[in-house]
Amino acid sequence: MSDPASQTIPEGTLADLGEFGLIQALIRRLPQGDQVLLGPGDDAALVSAPGGAVVLTTDVLVSGVHFRTDWVTPYDIGRRAAAASLADIAAMGGRTSAIVVALTAPPSLEVAWALRMADGLSDEASEVGASVVGGDIASSTQLAITVTALGDLEGREPVTRSGACAGDVAAVCGRLGWAEAGLAVLSRGFRSPRALVAAYRRPEPPYAAGPAAALAGATAMCDVSDGLLADFGLLASASGVGIDLDSSTLSIGEPLRAVAAAYGSDPLEWVLTGGHDHALAATFPAGTSLPEGFIAVGTVSSGEGVRVDGLLREGSGGHAHF
Amino acid sequence: MSDPASQTIPEGTLADLGEFGLIQALIRRLPQGDQVLLGPGDDAALVSAPGGAVVLTTDVLVSGVHFRTDWVTPYDIGRRAAAASLADIAAMGGRTSAIVVALTAPPSLEVAWALRMADGLSDEASEVGASVVGGDIASSTQLAITVTALGDLEGREPVTRSGACAGDVAAVCGRLGWAEAGLAVLSRGFRSPRALVAAYRRPEPPYAAGPAAALAGATAMCDVSDGLLADFGLLASASGVGIDLDSSTLSIGEPLRAVAAAYGSDPLEWVLTGGHDHALAATFPAGTSLPEGFIAVGTVSSGEGVRVDGLLREGSGGHAHF
Repeated sequence: MSDPASQTIPEGTLADLGEFGLIQALIRRLPQGDQVLLGPGDDAALVSAPGGAVVLTTDVLVSGVHFRTDWVTPYDIGRRAAAASLADIAAMGGRTSAIVVALTAPPSLEVAWALRMADGLSDEASEVGASVVGGDIASSTQLAITVTALGDLEGREPVTRSGACAGDVAAVCGRLGWAEAGLAVLSRGFRSPRALVAAYRRPEPPYAAGPAAALAGATAMCDVSDGLLADFGLLASASGVGIDLDSSTLSIGEPLRAVAAAYGSDPLEWVLTGGHDHALAATFPAGTSLPEGFIAVGTVSSGEGVRVDGLLREGSGGHAHF
Repeated sequence: MSDPASQTIPEGTLADLGEFGLIQALIRRLPQGDQVLLGPGDDAALVSAPGGAVVLTTDVLVSGVHFRTDWVTPYDIGRRAAAASLADIAAMGGRTSAIVVALTAPPSLEVAWALRMADGLSDEASEVGASVVGGDIASSTQLAITVTALGDLEGREPVTRSGACAGDVAAVCGRLGWAEAGLAVLSRGFRSPRALVAAYRRPEPPYAAGPAAALAGATAMCDVSDGLLADFGLLASASGVGIDLDSSTLSIGEPLRAVAAAYGSDPLEWVLTGGHDHALAATFPAGTSLPEGFIAVGTVSSGEGVRVDGLLREGSGGHAHF
């Protein structure tokens, strides 16, 4: 497998290169890890599954809904598309070993766009040692990317959403609200603070914290894709418990404060309801020494719903499709 | 898990029911097999992988490209979408254990359409004992369905496209040309012969023949999704061999002859170039007792390309995206 950076990117559109030419160009750019026993190019890929069970998740990103091609580079769109699925595997306590991708795109799409998007997918996957092992391409009026991730639990039990118990500590790892604030910045036509815009364009989920949380005995976990309130709400509902958050423990980054002040917004709302940072939210038995990066933000009660400083919060704040 | 047939299908559109309501309605309709250790509803599903390695493939079907909603029922579209991926797993010699699905659809889509499509996915998966273990849904202007299948090889080596050797027997299992002829019928505004239209609407890939071919020692195999010439051509290229087909051995069903006569078409062309029946094409060492359903249709040579009755055939005849 040669270095993508050393390869010429063909000029022209998907219509110019054709389906099979595009597939060949893509395959040449995708390095394959040791866990890949058979990579792209056959009817299916073969991936090692040493743990005896695998975790599987799929996420679709649609142009104009999940991303705008004028706000995010194709490379970062690839990284975001992969991150959404990789974070789901981490949230089960697993490590992603392989992803497959389906791209639907108009024939007028530039080949360079597709190849750079694939580079982003591949590089994000490589953050956890995973490879892009296959895919499919079809013409469509609307650009969309579906990433399916396969992960290994290394023999551990999965950490589901339904295991939280009254008395547990609620904790989070990773940034909250940054992507949402970055989107607010872009929506107003600005490009700075760059840290927020970058957080929106290329989230940095704390992948290693997923297996670490599982090893530390996490009782329940999920990734924060729709916002902390929404995702802790689903976790609380699945576990039949309530969660009481203490807002004073929630880290509000300096760029969030600055932008919120400029826009007259409440930065805590971004932290509570902003999605797409793909932080991890988990619960641990009281007294657990939390894994690196996790911060205690509340407690699990025998009630229901999510309370912030004692007040019950309704609604998700996440993106509602349909 | 209750019987889908006994459940009320909510009236209205996806916009009426909302994303989470739709997901809940879908989950209630999806039975889960024993190999599913954790089904839909968490960040990822957990599926048993006893063989130590898994096969993985993804296929996307786009409305207006791969299907027309006025020609095929949502239930059959679900069956076709699943069949495309299940056939790929069979073509590696594997059995599908689980599928995940991403649906992009306009908010105006009827809820009943989505649920019946999911029923089709689930029923097709159950043909091989597989379950629909998860998915994602997003709004989009164009309806598309991405199915990713996870399969088990039961400890066997995969049957790739690259193992055919000169002297091998080339064989096929399953119908050829029926779906293409059915499409020709529908394209002319007719609905009969019903056998051909049914073959287009709901292919019946010979799933069990995949593992059977692997057990019988198949040297190479692929599913026929783009046409026999195209797919044997890819197999020949991957193996560095040629394939000589004897057209007299290719079964031309009676309905194909009848429709071809009526339309002034050559039925052999449908058999050679028609895709979407998802037959299996394989090569076996000379003298192999072919598994049930396989018919010898030619021989593998040290040359290149695919010849029919001695004449080299160029081009795929399959659907070229872009």
